[in-house]
Formats: sequence, C-alpha cells, structure tokens
Amino acid sequence: MKAAVLRAPGGLDRIEICEREAPRPGPGEVLVRVRAVALNYHDYVVANGRVKIPDGRILMSDGAGEVVEAGEGASFRPGEAVVSVFYPAWLAGEPDDASRVIIPGETCDGYGAQLVAVPQAWVTRAPAGLSHAEAATLTCAGLTAWRAVVIEGKVKPGDCVLVQGTGGVSIFALQFAKAAGATVIATSSSTEKLARLKALGADQVINYRETPAWGEAARELTGGRGVDLVVEIGGAGTLPQSVAACRIGGRIVLIGVLAGLSGEAPTATIFLKQLTIKGIAVGSRADQLEMIRGIEATALRPVIDSTYPLEGLADAYRRQEAQRHFGKICVEL
Amino acid sequence: MKAAVLRAPGGLDRIEICEREAPRPGPGEVLVRVRAVALNYHDYVVANGRVKIPDGRILMSDGAGEVVEAGEGASFRPGEAVVSVFYPAWLAGEPDDASRVIIPGETCDGYGAQLVAVPQAWVTRAPAGLSHAEAATLTCAGLTAWRAVVIEGKVKPGDCVLVQGTGGVSIFALQFAKAAGATVIATSSSTEKLARLKALGADQVINYRETPAWGEAARELTGGRGVDLVVEIGGAGTLPQSVAACRIGGRIVLIGVLAGLSGEAPTATIFLKQLTIKGIAVGSRADQLEMIRGIEATALRPVIDSTYPLEGLADAYRRQEAQRHFGKICVEL
Amino acid sequence: MKAAVLRAPGGLDRIEICEREAPRPGPGEVLVRVRAVALNYHDYVVANGRVKIPDGRILMSDGAGEVVEAGEGASFRPGEAVVSVFYPAWLAGEPDDASRVIIPGETCDGYGAQLVAVPQAWVTRAPAGLSHAEAATLTCAGLTAWRAVVIEGKVKPGDCVLVQGTGGVSIFALQFAKAAGATVIATSSSTEKLARLKALGADQVINYRETPAWGEAARELTGGRGVDLVVEIGGAGTLPQSVAACRIGGRIVLIGVLAGLSGEAPTATIFLKQLTIKGIAVGSRADQLEMIRGIEATALRPVIDSTYPLEGLADAYRRQEAQRHFGKICVEL
Amino acid sequence: MKAAVLRAPGGLDRIEICEREAPRPGPGEVLVRVRAVALNYHDYVVANGRVKIPDGRILMSDGAGEVVEAGEGASFRPGEAVVSVFYPAWLAGEPDDASRVIIPGETCDGYGAQLVAVPQAWVTRAPAGLSHAEAATLTCAGLTAWRAVVIEGKVKPGDCVLVQGTGGVSIFALQFAKAAGATVIATSSSTEKLARLKALGADQVINYRETPAWGEAARELTGGRGVDLVVEIGGAGTLPQSVAACRIGGRIVLIGVLAGLSGEAPTATIFLKQLTIKGIAVGSRADQLEMIRGIEATALRPVIDSTYPLEGLADAYRRQEAQRHFGKICVEL
Repeated sequence: MKAAVLRAPGGLDRIEICEREAPRPGPGEVLVRVRAVALNYHDYVVANGRVKIPDGRILMSDGAGEVVEAGEGASFRPGEAVVSVFYPAWLAGEPDDASRVIIPGETCDGYGAQLVAVPQAWVTRAPAGLSHAEAATLTCAGLTAWRAVVIEGKVKPGDCVLVQGTGGVSIFALQFAKAAGATVIATSSSTEKLARLKALGADQVINYRETPAWGEAARELTGGRGVDLVVEIGGAGTLPQSVAACRIGGRIVLIGVLAGLSGEAPTATIFLKQLTIKGIAVGSRADQLEMIRGIEATALRPVIDSTYPLEGLADAYRRQEAQRHFGKICVEL
Repeated sequence: MKAAVLRAPGGLDRIEICEREAPRPGPGEVLVRVRAVALNYHDYVVANGRVKIPDGRILMSDGAGEVVEAGEGASFRPGEAVVSVFYPAWLAGEPDDASRVIIPGETCDGYGAQLVAVPQAWVTRAPAGLSHAEAATLTCAGLTAWRAVVIEGKVKPGDCVLVQGTGGVSIFALQFAKAAGATVIATSSSTEKLARLKALGADQVINYRETPAWGEAARELTGGRGVDLVVEIGGAGTLPQSVAACRIGGRIVLIGVLAGLSGEAPTATIFLKQLTIKGIAVGSRADQLEMIRGIEATALRPVIDSTYPLEGLADAYRRQEAQRHFGKICVEL
Repeated sequence: MKAAVLRAPGGLDRIEICEREAPRPGPGEVLVRVRAVALNYHDYVVANGRVKIPDGRILMSDGAGEVVEAGEGASFRPGEAVVSVFYPAWLAGEPDDASRVIIPGETCDGYGAQLVAVPQAWVTRAPAGLSHAEAATLTCAGLTAWRAVVIEGKVKPGDCVLVQGTGGVSIFALQFAKAAGATVIATSSSTEKLARLKALGADQVINYRETPAWGEAARELTGGRGVDLVVEIGGAGTLPQSVAACRIGGRIVLIGVLAGLSGEAPTATIFLKQLTIKGIAVGSRADQLEMIRGIEATALRPVIDSTYPLEGLADAYRRQEAQRHFGKICVEL
Repeated sequence: MKAAVLRAPGGLDRIEICEREAPRPGPGEVLVRVRAVALNYHDYVVANGRVKIPDGRILMSDGAGEVVEAGEGASFRPGEAVVSVFYPAWLAGEPDDASRVIIPGETCDGYGAQLVAVPQAWVTRAPAGLSHAEAATLTCAGLTAWRAVVIEGKVKPGDCVLVQGTGGVSIFALQFAKAAGATVIATSSSTEKLARLKALGADQVINYRETPAWGEAARELTGGRGVDLVVEIGGAGTLPQSVAACRIGGRIVLIGVLAGLSGEAPTATIFLKQLTIKGIAVGSRADQLEMIRGIEATALRPVIDSTYPLEGLADAYRRQEAQRHFGKICVEL
C-alpha cells in the first residue's frame, strides 16, 4: 500500500510517498481503508519540521474511510464509514496530561496511508450523508469549532458570535453558530471571501483591512452591546480587537496561535468587562460523537477548498501555507 | 377605559367587562396601551376561581401593547412596543421566595385593560416584527418553553427533544428546539394535529392514543439511545412514559401539573438512568430579554390558535378549557 | 486462594467460601492482593438472589488491597495501595449505556477473593493514610456521596444539606458536606445515632420517628428558607418530606430506592418550588480520583460499623439487612 | 455629621473631613449609622485622583453599621447590622452594562460619613458575630474573593488553589479556599508574611523573591499535576507564572490589574493547556448574601491589618500605598 511519510529532518520537500506493507488488525482493532485525509495546522507544523517526529513516520491525523475488517472483539462492521479521533486517549470528560499522549501523525503513525490498523476507539462512525473528504475535515477543525461554539461557547439562539477569517475552524464555527440559532459577524481582508461568508450564513461582515478597529466596529454592529462569543485564532494583534468586540461578561475561545507563542493582552479591559478567555485544543472522543449527531440533525456540510491526490500532498501543504484557501484542503486516496 | 375584572367568588361567568378610570404613570412607571393579552393556564385557574383573588381585580398576566407615556425617570419612549413580565420581582439569577411575590392578574391588577400604569421593570421591549397578540404569548408560555429548552434544557444541535401535545408551551418548545438545531419528537392524540406539528418542524410524531407506550416508542425512534430532553406537561400518567423515553443521563423539565398535584414516579428508573427532573415556573426578566434576542435572530413566529374581543374573554377561556386548541388563544383590545 | 462465591439460585445461605486457583495478570492488568471488601446495597441484592448472577461467581464490587504484580504495559508498581472502581467502563464524563456494562461482582467476578487480576483501569490508587478497609468503603458509598454532594450537589460554604439516616452513603454525605463548608441537618429514628451524627459534625438533627413531618421541621431549622440539597435515599415516604424541606430552587439527589421501585411524587410542589431531582448511581473513574484528592486534603476518615472475616460474609450481610448499622460493614481478608 | 470628602482635583492631600447635614431616609430607603469603612484599591485610585469624581463627593464604597431608621416600605429594622453592596444596581445573575452604573464613592456619595441614607437594596444584613470593621471588609475584597474561589473558581475539596501576596482579596481567597476543603499554596516576598499565611491555613508557601520561577515551583509542589485555580492579582509579570503553575484545564481568575492596563500573555501555553482566564469585578447583591451564609457557616473572620479614625483616612491610604499591610485597612467612625 502507499503511505505518505516524512523523512528527517522534516520540511515539505521531505514528504515521501512510499510503499509499505499493509497492516493487519489485532484484537480490538479495526482495519480501515483510508479514502481521504484533511490537512490541519498541526499536521503542517509537523510536516514542515517545526514539531519533530522520527524519520519515516506516516503523516496526518485527520482521516476518513471505511472499515475493511474488525479484529477480535471489535464492534465495527466491514463497510462502516468511520472518521479518526484527534486525541484517541481523551475518551470523555475534562482533559488531563494523559489526554494528549497519543496524536496520530505525531506520536505514532497517522492516516496518510491507504490502510491503517488502529484500536477501535481511535475512530468513530462518520456522519451519514457526508463524503469521506468531508468527514475527514471533522477530526480537528470540525471538533475544535464544535467545542468552541457549542460546548465551551454554550451558544444559544440569539447570541452573537464573531469568527475571524476563512480558515477551516472559522468556517465550521460560523456554520455551527448558525445551526444553533446565533447571529454571526465574520471578518476577512478579501471582499470576495466576505461575500462567500455571507452566502454561508454570516449575518454581517467586516473587512479588517479596511477597518483596523474591527473590534469596536463589531460591537457597534450589535447595537453597542457587544458580541457574546469570539472564536479567536490567535492572529497578529487579534486579541485586543476581540476584547473590544465583547459584551460585558463575554467569552473568547482561543483556538490557535497563528501569530506566535505569546502576545499583548489588555488585562484591564478583560478584568473590567469580566471576560472569559478559554484555550481550546480539539476535544474528546465523546465530544466528537455529539458533534456527529449535531451535523446529522442540521444537515451541515463541511466546506472543502480543494482536493489533491496523495502524490500532491506537498502541494496541498503549500496551498495551506499561502493562506489563500477558503475552508479545508483535502487529499483523496 | 374598559377592563376585564373578576367578581367574587370567581368562575368564568363572574368575569365582567367594566369601565375603569384610566391610570396615570407615577415616577419610574410607564403607561401602556394594551393591544392584546394571551390566555395561560394560570390565568385560567384564577378566572375559574380555583386560585382566589379579591373582588374586582383586573385579570390576566400576559399583555402586550405600546408605551403611551413614560413617568419621571423611566427610560421607555412613547410608541415603543412592550410585553409584560410574568414575575416582575424576579429580575435575574436564580429564583427565591421574593421572586414570586408579584404576579399581575393575581397578586395585583393585570393586563386585561385598555391602559395600565406599571413600574418600567414590569415590561420589556417586544421582539421586532411580531404583532401585539404574538408578543403577548411570550410572557408565560414563550418564556416557560425558552427556559425549559434553552436555559435548563441546554439543548444543542443534535439533541433529541420530546414535546407533549399542542398547548402553548409545547409548541413553543418545539419551535425553540428546532431553532437550536435539535430534532423533535411530538405527541398528540389527533392525526390532524400531528400533521400540523410536522408542518411546524417536528421530525417524528407519535399518536399517544394509538401508542399508549409512547415513551418506549420514542426511545425506539432514537435508535434505542433515548431522548435527551422531555418537556413534561404533568398530564395523567405522562411522567412514567417520559422516564421511559429518556436516555441514560437524560433530562425532564416539568412545566406544569395538568393532571393533578401529585403522581406516581418511577424512582428506580430515575435512579438507574441517572435522570434529572427539573421543575420550571416561567423565568426571570433577564431570561425574557434573552428569549427576545433568540426570537429575533431565528425569526420565530408564535402560533396563535384564535383571537377574541375583550367581551369574548369568557368564551376564550371556555375554548381553552375544552383543550381543543393548537397554540395560544388571545384577546385583542 | 480463598474466594467468596454465590451458588445458584442465590440467597445469603448460598454464599460459599471456596478455594480457587490464583489468577495471573495479563498484559495491561494488575494482580491485587485484596485486603478488605466493603458491603454495599447492590452487593446485598446480588447475594440475596434478587439480581441474578451465574452460579459460582465471585461476589462483591468494593475491594482494596495492594498490587502484587503489574502485567506488561501496566503502570502500577508492586506494593501500591489500590481501591476498586464500581463502573470500570465509565472512565470519565457523562454516563451512557456503555458506562454500566461492567460491574464486578455482578457481570463478572468481583473482589471477594484473596487475589484478583484486573485491567489496571479497574482500580485507582487509594488515599494516603487510610486502612484497606476504609479504602474499600469508597468504591460505592464514598463515590456516590461525593458525586451527590460535590459534583451534582455543587455544595459550597454556607449551603445547608439534609442527610437521611445512618447508612454508608448518608454518613459520607455528611462528612463531604462539612468538608465543603456546608451546614448539615441529619435525621434518624434513634436518639443514640443522632448523638453520633452530631459528633461527626451534623449541625442539627431531627428524630423522624418523633417528628413525622420532618421535612417542614428541617425547613424551619433553616429560618424558613429551606435546605439547598437533600441526599435522598428513596425510603418509604421520604420524597414528599424532602420536597417540603427544600428551598425554592433546591435540589434533591436520589441515591437509592430503599423502599421500592416507584413512589408518590408531589409534582405540584416540585413545579412551584422549581426543584431539581437528580438520580445518581455511583460515578466515573475520574470522579473517584477527584474524590481521593478531596479525602486526602480534608483528612476525612470513613466510618466503619464493623468488620468480619471472609468466613463471616453471610453474617455481615445479615447485619446489613437488619438496618441497625452505623456506617460501613467490611470484611477483612 | 462628619464626612470624608474629596476636593478637586483629587489626591490624598485633598481628602477633607467636613461637616454635612444628616440625611433623612426617603421611601424604600434606610438610614444607616456607619461604624466602619474598609479601604480597597478602587477607593484608592479615586482618592489619589486617578479616577475623577466631582468636587466634594463623599468617599468610599465599603461601609458597615447599623440601621437607625427605615423609610416607608423598607423592610430592615432599626438596630440591624448591615454592610454595603459594591454594585447596588447588580442585583443578581450575570453582569451587564447596567450592573456597574452605581458605585458609591465614585458615581455618587459613598460611606465615608457618620450617617447615610440609601435605597435598602444598597445594603445587606451583615454576618452574625462580626465587628463592623470586619463586616466592612466584605463589600469589595470579601466578595471578590468569594466569587473568584467559590462561584467562578468552583473550588471543591481536594482542589489546589494558588494565592498571591497578602492583600485583602488574596487573604480572603486563602480563607474561602480552606473553608471549601481545598489545599492552598501562597506566595509572598517576606518570610514573616509567609509564616502568617501558614498560620491562616496555607498548606505550602513560596517566597517569590527567592524563587522567581514560582509558577513552576508551585506546579512541582502539586506533584507535577499543576494547580486547579490561581487567584491572579495582575501584578508585574505574574500572569506567565500563573499559567506555568496551572494544570491542564486549570483556571485563572483575574481579580485586579496591580501592574498596569495590559501585559504579556503566554497564549500558546494557554491554548495547549486549555486554560480558562476569567476577569472578576466584585459580584452581585445575591452573591453577597450567599457569601454571608458561607462566612457564618464556617465561622470565618476577616483579617484586619490596622484601623484608623476618620481623621486618619489619608494616613490609612498611605499605608495601603506602601504595600506593607497584611489584610484589610479599616477606618472606624
């Protein structure tokens, strides 16, 4: 079978498509024919060598496909569509140190291969009605947005949610917020992308290049009250704007650190507005099962920017690196 | 001005439409021209004499209209559309003994009059785009359903909610659950009403006359998992069915006591399924403001069964008593 | 090694102490030398034959002892003191159908044996400073009380908690409530036991035989406000008293069904007081680890009524059956 | 009567003790003989002129005394001991813009006077058994710590709480955390103060001058797991240490901004550890009533650093400015 592995010391030009022996499922495992994988930011920092992995490891955490064979004692059946779990050791409840010891594509082989054999808890059923590529987008981006909007954001009908840009998590956050009855304010630097965000349901949009004080602009769009929730991507200088956008008692979920490892925080305003800032790193397997029910109930369809063949994986990462995409970049096997 | 008052000792034939002197707003008060009132079950047990009130008290708690004049220090402006608050002493937070000392139409004059002068906290703005009759339905039935589904029920996309029958709260609960991304199972004894519930968004329906074990039937409709939330109206023998319908860890919100003051509870199943049963009596003024944002964001329109003139108030109650209505019965002034 | 097994069709006189071959730990398992087991109500209904188990199954779910040997890949070390988990398949988060498929002593062999070999997730470390008998009381009674008072009851300093009688869960609930800063009202029918409850920290006590309307009496002891939380054991006629005791918005956790499978519930008062009733069946493994930290931080010592040798197991159950105990009945091996 | 007022443009040397006419209670008001006021940081930035108030305004928000006379319709009785509410417009529930429109001593006259007449909701009963000076410390410092530890911190037995320094809020936080069954790690730069913190119940202490990486040191004191809650005072460089101290999923409550309006935040660690940072500005009147029950149930006594006569108010502020105090500085009238 074919597999995408990373050669030491990493870098997009060190991705290699090679032949590997097909795995066999052990007791409690499932053998999955991977049909699609989706790229996420964590995969990118692994592939470009910033996060170090052993030479020859199979890349990528977000995979979807169908079960080929169930090992002894496993309960999935051949033919079932499944999707991978980002933190398979985080089964349910609150995270702890043990939650993040397993990250496929980093701490062990990932899903960038035609066949994988994994313990059955490492996958869940996929939502009915989605393609494998659509399902693969759920593992990291979908679940991060679900947890940000639904579980930690507790969004209810009438809440106002602000999402930033057109990355995978932001678009899912827009979709989940609309599915939960919220109004959504979306930002982008591109007029064309703002139009696409409106087509996806954004109630109001702000061009952050034309409106550098977009936090205050968002607050004004709410009639001065402020937004209830910001899905913060950790971009350059975004946090002070997010704080300005919030209502008294509002909430900011920090779902990434696009612009660096630390940044200036307007602590006095966080204190006086009594804001909550909550870091979110994907979610548990139980959260994923709830998200899947949510997707099925609301007929939500993930937004796919583009798809590549496995041989085009490095090109796919280069598209992600260029930051011009809208939605998720996938690879079909 | 005209007002609907109740003559001692109460009873639908003791409702009297009489002339009263028009009130004037004191400091901090608003004078409201009431355009519509909606009937609720509590109003009914007051009007029929089961709950005792002084002779000559103006009836009804659920009113809507427009502000005519603001007293000194009040912040509403003439012309603003407003809707009454069921428990005006319950401003926010958790209920306590003080929350329920004021109930217009019971502990003091209500909204069954062409003009009322009340402290401004006794009303809130009405949702944009609703008629006065539609707005009037929110005070009791709307807010009870909002609190049941959104605040205490914490319904999120993909949850399954079971609603019982076609009373005002149940229909609002169906609408709020759909607005929040849930799937809904609705029950009724009438094929025609089941069709109307489906038209309002119910995903699945059960005729409880044809299917007496409708709790188990509902559980089967969820693939055996059970429903996440039941909005329980306290009907004859409904609680054991609701318990049977629930999933492990499910939740039942008890929003009324249609069939009597006490009933048989299947405590062993409540214990083993680890269910939550939560009594809900309307909500706070702050809850009402959140509901109004939710209604505006989702363009929800209350379902009105029928409207009567003020002179037809006793007839309106008789229609309610007959239990054949679908949605809310209103009176327009 | 010696083991306590149940012979079909069950009954206290069908308990048999026999010889079994000592088990060996498989991969991921630990071999535990059981030093003590504690009796709980579930064990009792298994032993007396009400819940059916296969002939020859080893009894009892609540065991404590020390690790003798860790199988391949298991992380416990020889000599570590451990205590069993009641629902080993419920690792964390909310319960679901899968949470309760494994109950040692019912669905598989239990801890009534000198040696057991179990997957390492079936036990946790024991609190420092407790005897094995004290640790064994935590599995069912301790964790049920912890979840009732701390997790679902959310007791905070100044809350008032009512506990019923002198069974194991009630005494733990008293201790956890005091450790969390609450005031406690305790009931019993025995003057002598009331004195012992006071010695354990109960602020006020009620003899429910002398005061049949003890719910109202409890409410008066709070200055008329009502208690915040009742730990309800499901006794004969206790629920209506618990409802009477509660404040507006109060909470009743139902931790057992001593008096039968169903009972009369005062639904109108539950509705008007906006009470929450929540069924609680033990807790997850993650809950147990939190409880152990709580016990260590507050130096709480479980209350042991009496201890028996393994050969006295049937007598131990007879003492439990007689309902005269105060705290937990244990067996030491 | 005597009153402490501030002369424009503010500054500690612009505090003036003058004679004012004694007020009379209007309808719904209470006349309170103020017996003690406590200094807080907000009062200090008002007095030193950083927050601007009109010339001649009576200073200070935290007062306690006894009711002299109740105006028409007010329910307090003469002789009742009462304590002021910091945000009297924030009655209950979540904060909003309206919550903070009234701050006595800033937006209107405060409690630095022998007699005040205020709407009765501006005060609550004081805890039984406390002196007036002790009660006065509760309004700002006590309630901030209560909300940080109990309401937002949700501290339960066994949690580990880190408190910083020996200001009023930090000491209350230590006391409430111990009352709730937690273990406490406390920091100070003074060996003598660390000894006093231990005497108050701190389980472990760190001298942050000797151990600049005290965040990591705190984490090590927990056996590597990390603390559950940090009560963060917004000191110079404290936030990165607090982040280092936390466990995965830990919580930091930001209760002040001692070192400036903004600061560096380690966003990557906040994200990866999935931390919550929550700004806290005092609390609601309903929160204050809960705190009072908590104080009474646990017999907690506020720690008073020193007391001054009204004429010594400027000196009292200078002591606060010097940052050498331990606990609360009070003024007795």
